Amino acid sequence: MNLNVDHALKGNTDLELIEDVLQRFFIDAKLRAVSVNATYLELWEALERATAGGKRSRPRLVMLAYRQLGGTDFPSAAQLAASYELLHSALLIHDDVIDRDFVRRGNPNVSGHYRNRALRAGVPPVPAEHAGVSAGVLAGDLALSSAFRLLRSIDAPAAVRRRLDEILDDAIFCSVGGEVLDIEFSRTADMPSLENITKTAHQKTSVYSFEAPLQAGAVLAGAPDPVVTALTSFGRYAGIAYQLADDVLGVFGKESRTGKTTWGDLREGKRTALLAYAAARPEWSSIAALIGSAGMTAADAEYIRSVLVACGAKEYAISLATENAHLAVMHLQSDDVPADLRSSLEGMLFSVISDVNSN
Amino acid sequence: MNLNVDHALKGNTDLELIEDVLQRFFIDAKLRAVSVNATYLELWEALERATAGGKRSRPRLVMLAYRQLGGTDFPSAAQLAASYELLHSALLIHDDVIDRDFVRRGNPNVSGHYRNRALRAGVPPVPAEHAGVSAGVLAGDLALSSAFRLLRSIDAPAAVRRRLDEILDDAIFCSVGGEVLDIEFSRTADMPSLENITKTAHQKTSVYSFEAPLQAGAVLAGAPDPVVTALTSFGRYAGIAYQLADDVLGVFGKESRTGKTTWGDLREGKRTALLAYAAARPEWSSIAALIGSAGMTAADAEYIRSVLVACGAKEYAISLATENAHLAVMHLQSDDVPADLRSSLEGMLFSVISDVNSN
Repeated sequence: MNLNVDHALKGNTDLELIEDVLQRFFIDAKLRAVSVNATYLELWEALERATAGGKRSRPRLVMLAYRQLGGTDFPSAAQLAASYELLHSALLIHDDVIDRDFVRRGNPNVSGHYRNRALRAGVPPVPAEHAGVSAGVLAGDLALSSAFRLLRSIDAPAAVRRRLDEILDDAIFCSVGGEVLDIEFSRTADMPSLENITKTAHQKTSVYSFEAPLQAGAVLAGAPDPVVTALTSFGRYAGIAYQLADDVLGVFGKESRTGKTTWGDLREGKRTALLAYAAARPEWSSIAALIGSAGMTAADAEYIRSVLVACGAKEYAISLATENAHLAVMHLQSDDVPADLRSSLEGMLFSVISDVNSN
Repeated sequence: MNLNVDHALKGNTDLELIEDVLQRFFIDAKLRAVSVNATYLELWEALERATAGGKRSRPRLVMLAYRQLGGTDFPSAAQLAASYELLHSALLIHDDVIDRDFVRRGNPNVSGHYRNRALRAGVPPVPAEHAGVSAGVLAGDLALSSAFRLLRSIDAPAAVRRRLDEILDDAIFCSVGGEVLDIEFSRTADMPSLENITKTAHQKTSVYSFEAPLQAGAVLAGAPDPVVTALTSFGRYAGIAYQLADDVLGVFGKESRTGKTTWGDLREGKRTALLAYAAARPEWSSIAALIGSAGMTAADAEYIRSVLVACGAKEYAISLATENAHLAVMHLQSDDVPADLRSSLEGMLFSVISDVNSN
């Protein structure tokens, strides 16, 4: 997920605050780790690498809402923002454990680092992979409890802290629920319904990536309830719109832009609105066997893309994304929501939608 | 770990309070889960089963310290106590993921439940095991964030809450550090030093099983710092003593008492003080090849036991356990520690030591 929020807020100032909190957090954690045992440091360094280099989309949403709703305690806001980045790390790391992925953003992830390290030490592949997975489980646990730790370091009234705790807790609760649904659907051969695909995307990603950060930023800023509610609803539909757009870009986007191959999703048979729509069309029979096949060639992928266009799946997914984007924006049409914030969020959202359309 | 604390406190009253909190927690969580999606309920039911049937040793230590240090808000103490049971579940579940265990206390654990379910659905063994591991990762995450959630529900002054948060956070931080050390040592063929075995046991088990629960109970009761410090030191050495005694019982104990086979530890080659001592003795060569061998027979185990006795390893481990027990008790010899609490803790500790000696 890559939100172009730079234009929408004092991008660098906020980004610097977020990076500063994360850097200080890891310095402190690594000192603590060494005081426990020397071996422990390596796991924290792996977690720090896993947390580096992200787009900071969630923290930026926290800062955006906080700043444009009149917040003035930016150090506290940055702590809150950073806790969502660590939650993101925790979920990614455990997601990689679940998906048996050892690489992320082209580099070894936590599990990959420990697997490679074991292989170099002469450990056979299976136990080496096992060592990698074990490290991934532990690093994710650390990231998860670190998200709570950062939240506790925020200087705010008890009532506000309680709400921030609830928002983070709900985000975790809901994300795991979405992950369960995702695993459930990926285990069955037949394509889940569009409704279930959207539901999974919402629970697994939108809630902790959009709703919760905006909600949390607004609550810390002391925004009135109608604004918090409006942002939560915006986040819900914006998240779904992003997910739908992201899935289209994952198949049709230019690799140069998306930074990932345009057939990874097709090869792993990722359940998307594109495929769910296509699965209900007669053309499906001509690609069903190719979807999710490990031996997929560039030509296969090109053919699948042509069928997804021909059967109207691409157009449908784009229109569905656009529709959700409009729904999202609709929820900002309230006098309670400051015009600046509204236009920032609209700008972010439609930059992505136009990305998909121009594709 | 099984602490005989019944005699040491209003055992049932406290146990009832603890069970009541856990029961209400899971009812609430399952209702929340259903509101997310129907599939999610099954994971929470699996987590509830994983949390059921334990000895509640950690929560009982919380209640013991709290009650005997003059605490009067038992509902809050029970919330605190329950949070340590959920931390225990989280660590056990992820430990099982790391050890690829699908059974705990003779029943399928979370991973085992989901693996068997997948197998029944006709999923091949490898992906079925994978489905089990995935569920274990997620259930552990839920248990971990639930420990924090229960802690937040405690009604206490901000300063006390902050300390309780720190104690839980430190316990998690240290346990993961011990786990890392454990994985590190188990990966190498040669036996770690006695010092490293004790260090690992302390970090991985004692801190969250003894130090933190006693500390937390004392802090919530508003005990003066010297008492908190004394209990922390007691917990440290008591934990090591228990671990050493437990390892001896794991090899020499009556299965009827320990509820586990007396050669499981030998078959998996578990690094214990027994083996570390034996490894430095000439007799080692006669059993080194048997230790950790999957095909171990009852006769092999019997032979190993006889060697561990002959080379003095058993006697050494017992004396080391006793020595640590005395060190633990020494830290209670302060007028700050109420006599009742002191005798309760001494009673608990020595009931175990005498168990080992009578063995």
